[in-house]
Amino acid sequence: MSLYVNLAELLGTRIEQGFYRPGDRLPSVRALSVEHGVSLSTVQQAYRLLEDNGLALPKPKSGYFVPASRELPALPVVGRPAQRPVEISQWDHVLELIRVVPHKDTVQLGRGIPDIGSPTMKPLLRSLAQISRRQDLPGLGYDNIYGNLGLREQIARLLLDSGCQLEPQDLVITTGCHEALSASIRAICEPGDIVAVDSPSFHGAMQTLKGLGMKALEIPTDPLTGISLDALELALEQWPIKVIQLTPNCNNPLGYIMPESRKRALLQLAQRFDVAIIEDDVYGELSYTYPRPRTIKSFDDDGRVLLCSSFSKTLAPGLRVGWVAPGRYLERVLHMKYISTGASAPQPQLAVADFLRNGHFEPHLRRMRTQYQRNRDLMLDWVSRYFPAGTRASRPQGSFMLWVELPDGFDTLRLNRALLDQGVQVAVGSIFSASGKYRNCLRMNYAAKPTAQVEEAVRRVGVTATRLLNENSHSSD
Amino acid sequence: MSLYVNLAELLGTRIEQGFYRPGDRLPSVRALSVEHGVSLSTVQQAYRLLEDNGLALPKPKSGYFVPASRELPALPVVGRPAQRPVEISQWDHVLELIRVVPHKDTVQLGRGIPDIGSPTMKPLLRSLAQISRRQDLPGLGYDNIYGNLGLREQIARLLLDSGCQLEPQDLVITTGCHEALSASIRAICEPGDIVAVDSPSFHGAMQTLKGLGMKALEIPTDPLTGISLDALELALEQWPIKVIQLTPNCNNPLGYIMPESRKRALLQLAQRFDVAIIEDDVYGELSYTYPRPRTIKSFDDDGRVLLCSSFSKTLAPGLRVGWVAPGRYLERVLHMKYISTGASAPQPQLAVADFLRNGHFEPHLRRMRTQYQRNRDLMLDWVSRYFPAGTRASRPQGSFMLWVELPDGFDTLRLNRALLDQGVQVAVGSIFSASGKYRNCLRMNYAAKPTAQVEEAVRRVGVTATRLLNENSHSSD
Repeated sequence: MSLYVNLAELLGTRIEQGFYRPGDRLPSVRALSVEHGVSLSTVQQAYRLLEDNGLALPKPKSGYFVPASRELPALPVVGRPAQRPVEISQWDHVLELIRVVPHKDTVQLGRGIPDIGSPTMKPLLRSLAQISRRQDLPGLGYDNIYGNLGLREQIARLLLDSGCQLEPQDLVITTGCHEALSASIRAICEPGDIVAVDSPSFHGAMQTLKGLGMKALEIPTDPLTGISLDALELALEQWPIKVIQLTPNCNNPLGYIMPESRKRALLQLAQRFDVAIIEDDVYGELSYTYPRPRTIKSFDDDGRVLLCSSFSKTLAPGLRVGWVAPGRYLERVLHMKYISTGASAPQPQLAVADFLRNGHFEPHLRRMRTQYQRNRDLMLDWVSRYFPAGTRASRPQGSFMLWVELPDGFDTLRLNRALLDQGVQVAVGSIFSASGKYRNCLRMNYAAKPTAQVEEAVRRVGVTATRLLNENSHSSD
Repeated sequence: MSLYVNLAELLGTRIEQGFYRPGDRLPSVRALSVEHGVSLSTVQQAYRLLEDNGLALPKPKSGYFVPASRELPALPVVGRPAQRPVEISQWDHVLELIRVVPHKDTVQLGRGIPDIGSPTMKPLLRSLAQISRRQDLPGLGYDNIYGNLGLREQIARLLLDSGCQLEPQDLVITTGCHEALSASIRAICEPGDIVAVDSPSFHGAMQTLKGLGMKALEIPTDPLTGISLDALELALEQWPIKVIQLTPNCNNPLGYIMPESRKRALLQLAQRFDVAIIEDDVYGELSYTYPRPRTIKSFDDDGRVLLCSSFSKTLAPGLRVGWVAPGRYLERVLHMKYISTGASAPQPQLAVADFLRNGHFEPHLRRMRTQYQRNRDLMLDWVSRYFPAGTRASRPQGSFMLWVELPDGFDTLRLNRALLDQGVQVAVGSIFSASGKYRNCLRMNYAAKPTAQVEEAVRRVGVTATRLLNENSHSSD
């Protein structure tokens, strides 16, 4: 990594963490050059990068400053979901989202798709094309059920960054994180079992519980620190919970990173009540801070954590390359993976392994993190500007999704219907709840380049929401 | 299709069906030329093709004859499985088969892999390589949950050959036939439910039942005509069966094609007892007779048949492109597919759609059918030659797998262990039974080019089996 990028990241982290406050003067170019033993021009390059990311503001003849804080939307309130296990509903609204054939002219703010257009993806595509041309068994036959060994070696190395010391034989390649989650659930639970989930929660994981006949016990979740440990403890005392399923890093949809101390405390709770943990880390590599946050799995010493992830958010969902580190449930997960799809497709595995082995993943991630962080700030700015007063929004610490909360009683299903002709769609909040709560919330994707078209799409969402709100207040006059 | 290939197929079918008997003189070149209105050289080409396939024997100055019948192994006896629903076992032996990392020098006679080396596959690989290079959403994003529309259109056309009139919206693309079967089972059954299966039966489908907590009721199956309808009727009267799961076309492992009248009768039984049918047609396109056999689905008038298939046996398993036509269970199957893997990988779907659209599939199938039929004859010949006296074998009417039955009390698990150092492995019979029956049976793949190495591998299996049998009889002296 270049020296100036290193330095920019260090300063950026300090600013993000509040070490330097809005309006503060940042260290002089000369001071930083001496402190870090780098040239003046390296420091200047670092500042220019920070400036590009909106983290530093040059003032003529005075140096660089932290930009004055913008007027940000207030944080969403902590949800108050049902305090008992419920059957999961909302399949019809999820189906509405996923049966859509994406139209070229529609801005799909609702889907969980990363920006796949980055030039840093090129080596992957080249590798994929090369492998596809080869008419041999490694690419076209059945792989062994664990998945490609070379890829598992690369993933084991990658996992070191999250604090996990795993061997390739501890990993099973899956057809996306979907299959990792689904095989994990089926490895542990039977129909009727109760699963504790963070709430709001990824709709795919919720629908998996529904499809398998399990009940969800939604635990209130803080938009900055994650699942409430007090509420979880109470639930564990009251109900025969089999497993806790959550996304502690760059949560979907709230975007928080659960602090390390809370991750440890959660694991201790799971140990005390002897329940398993299914940890969805699919966005973990997209944390805006570097090094990336640790996983709960990294503290796991008795194999009760099943770590699920994929390259769907870091590279491209169409590859369908995911994995699971199932701990003590390995044998059961292998069986569940076998009966769900057999062995996974080898060609994309071989291509991703090449991409990692040749060192292309790290620079790609760096670029995407920077892009997504910058887009987050823009998106928050657009929400402040275009959405009705009183709108609340999350503060994503990674990934590329913003959770937006409109006033109580607002109906985002109606909003989406009203947006149908305007070439833009969002993800309605209710699909993130087992019982259809969060109807006044929505999730928007900010992965793509923030073009005028994207800004216009967000503006339309805001303007339409304002109109619906006004109609509402008029009709209740 | 070339005229001579057409003619050869017609004559071949008549020979196979016994219209011309072994030793019979076949029609003269001139007579055929007149009868079919083709040139003499076309007839001669057709005869040369039949000769290559071992179906016609030239005698100087006398014309062509049907070869005298070879000494074929006797047919396997009809299984007598348990007459009650059982929990499925054998996962450990299936795992042994599928966890194997295929070694270059091992002849894997045990796996269900087609010959992927045919030059007729080239256009598919070219298309795959082209699509992989494109950095766009159709290839790299999430597809809609039904799968690629273009591919579904092509599959709907393909299904016409099996007598099915289906629309693209009746089809769901899956990650291989594995997922089609698994989503179908889960769409209909709950843990504890009873599923009637043909026996012996595909081990993947059996392990799916096991993994989902269902019980299998194994129905005796004739090696030439398929599942016993009498036994099935009795079972339907006695037990609350939810679904009948079977492979009527080019059955795995027995290779038979269930006669059309019996397919109709089976459907009537299902209607009378109001149960669903899961029809695995993954080998149906590889029938040696042309046109290909009809599916039970093609007679289905109330949507109770879920037709499952894939391109894993006709093209390559590594593509992981399968499909299901779920009839009245469409909505449930969509849900089950979504929770198992989300949408399937788009790139291989796009490539297969191209391959079909451009007319490459039919010539490819023709070539593979001919190759597999020829290999079957060789394999039967090798079994007669190298296996112990008293060995029985199936008469596959399609696909590329032979079922071999050794004397009662023989243990193919021991055989496979004894073969471990000899660079050859077979599929042990017990994995094709819910309760570990067929221990004296094995399945061998004859898809690959019948090289001297393959013949030597089969010889080793036979020689080792003979040795084990002799040891057995000595030790019991």
